[in-house]
Amino acid sequence: MVADPLSRLVQELAKLPGIGERTAARLAFHILRAPESYARQLAEAILDLKARLRECEICCMLTEAERCRVCCEARRDAALVMVVATPQDLLAIERAASYQGTYHVLHGLLSPLDGVGPDALRIKALLARCGSGAAGAPALREVILATRPSVEGDATALYLARLLGPLGVRTTRIASGVPIGGEIELADGVTLHRAIEDRRELR
Amino acid sequence: MVADPLSRLVQELAKLPGIGERTAARLAFHILRAPESYARQLAEAILDLKARLRECEICCMLTEAERCRVCCEARRDAALVMVVATPQDLLAIERAASYQGTYHVLHGLLSPLDGVGPDALRIKALLARCGSGAAGAPALREVILATRPSVEGDATALYLARLLGPLGVRTTRIASGVPIGGEIELADGVTLHRAIEDRRELR
Repeated sequence: MVADPLSRLVQELAKLPGIGERTAARLAFHILRAPESYARQLAEAILDLKARLRECEICCMLTEAERCRVCCEARRDAALVMVVATPQDLLAIERAASYQGTYHVLHGLLSPLDGVGPDALRIKALLARCGSGAAGAPALREVILATRPSVEGDATALYLARLLGPLGVRTTRIASGVPIGGEIELADGVTLHRAIEDRRELR
Repeated sequence: MVADPLSRLVQELAKLPGIGERTAARLAFHILRAPESYARQLAEAILDLKARLRECEICCMLTEAERCRVCCEARRDAALVMVVATPQDLLAIERAASYQGTYHVLHGLLSPLDGVGPDALRIKALLARCGSGAAGAPALREVILATRPSVEGDATALYLARLLGPLGVRTTRIASGVPIGGEIELADGVTLHRAIEDRRELR
C-alpha cells in the first residue's frame, strides 16, 4: 500500500541497529515533512562518510588526511601506544582527556567463532610500529592494551602481549576499572582514567 | 576530535525525532562499517523520497503517480470519504482492511496555538470533492471524520462538519471509547465518559 519511495526508505532505515519498522516509518515521515535541504544534507553526509574517511597511516584511526589528529599532535608521546578495538573507544578515551600518548586502532577483536582472526585486525601495522627504532631498540616504550574486559578483549590482549613480548616492548593491560562485560565506549571519564592509571604488566 | 564527515553525519542524524547524539553516533558507525552499497542505497532512498512523492490530485495522499492507489481502485466507494490527518493514519486504517471507501488526507490538524489554520490543511480540496455532483446534488454521500479524539482532532472535525453541513453532505465522526482488548480499569476518565455517552442499543 505504501507509496514506493516511502517503503523503500523505511526498508533501508530498518536495517540500522535498534531501528524497527515502526521507528523507521516515523523517521521517514519526518524526513518527508522536513525541508528538502535537510534530506539533501543527510544523504550527502551518508555518502561523504564512506567517500572521505580512511585510516591513519600510523594508528589506523579514521581520518580525512593521511594522518589522524592525534598522530599529528607534537605534544603526544609517540613511544606510548594505547591499543583500542574501535574508533569509538578511542573517542571515549580522548573525551576523558587524561591520556597523553598515541593510539592504535585494531578495528575489531579476535573472535574465532565469528571468523575474526588476526589478519582481520590491524595487528601487522602495530608490529611495524614496534620495529622501527634506532640501533635495533624498539621504537615504542610501552603498549597499553585497552581492549574491553571480555572473552574477546582479553584473548586479543593476551595474543598481542605474546607477540609484543619478544620484541622487547613493555606491554600493559588497563585495569578492570571498567565494569566486567561493559563497553569501553560507554564508560565515564573517571573510570577510564582509573583504568589507565592501574594498568599492569602482562607476561 | 571526531573526523569531520563522521561528526557531520552524527549531527544530521541527531536532528531526527527520538535520535540523540549517542544513538546517532551508533548509527553513523554502523553505516561506516556496512558495505558501501548500503550507504548508497540509504542516501538514494532519502533523496528519492522528496523527489518522487507528490500528493494525489483527488485525496492528497502521497503517491508517485497523479492518483494514489486507493483512488485508482475501481471497487472503492468514491462517494464515501474518510477524512484523516496524516498519510500514516490512512495506512493504519488500510492495514485494518475493513474500510471500502476512499480517503481525504488533511496533512495536519487545526492548531491555532501552533499557527496551523484552515489554509495549511487540504480543506479546499475536500470541499471541491463535495461540489462536483450531477444536477446540483452533492457528489459525496458521506464524509467520515476520522481525526483523533483530542482537542485538535475534535476541533478540526467540528470545523469540517460546519463547512460540510450546508453542502448537504452527511457528516459522521468515528466512535471513540475503550479500545478493543483494553482494560476498563486502566482507561482514563475522559475515555470512559465518552464511551458511556456514545453507548448504543444492543439487540
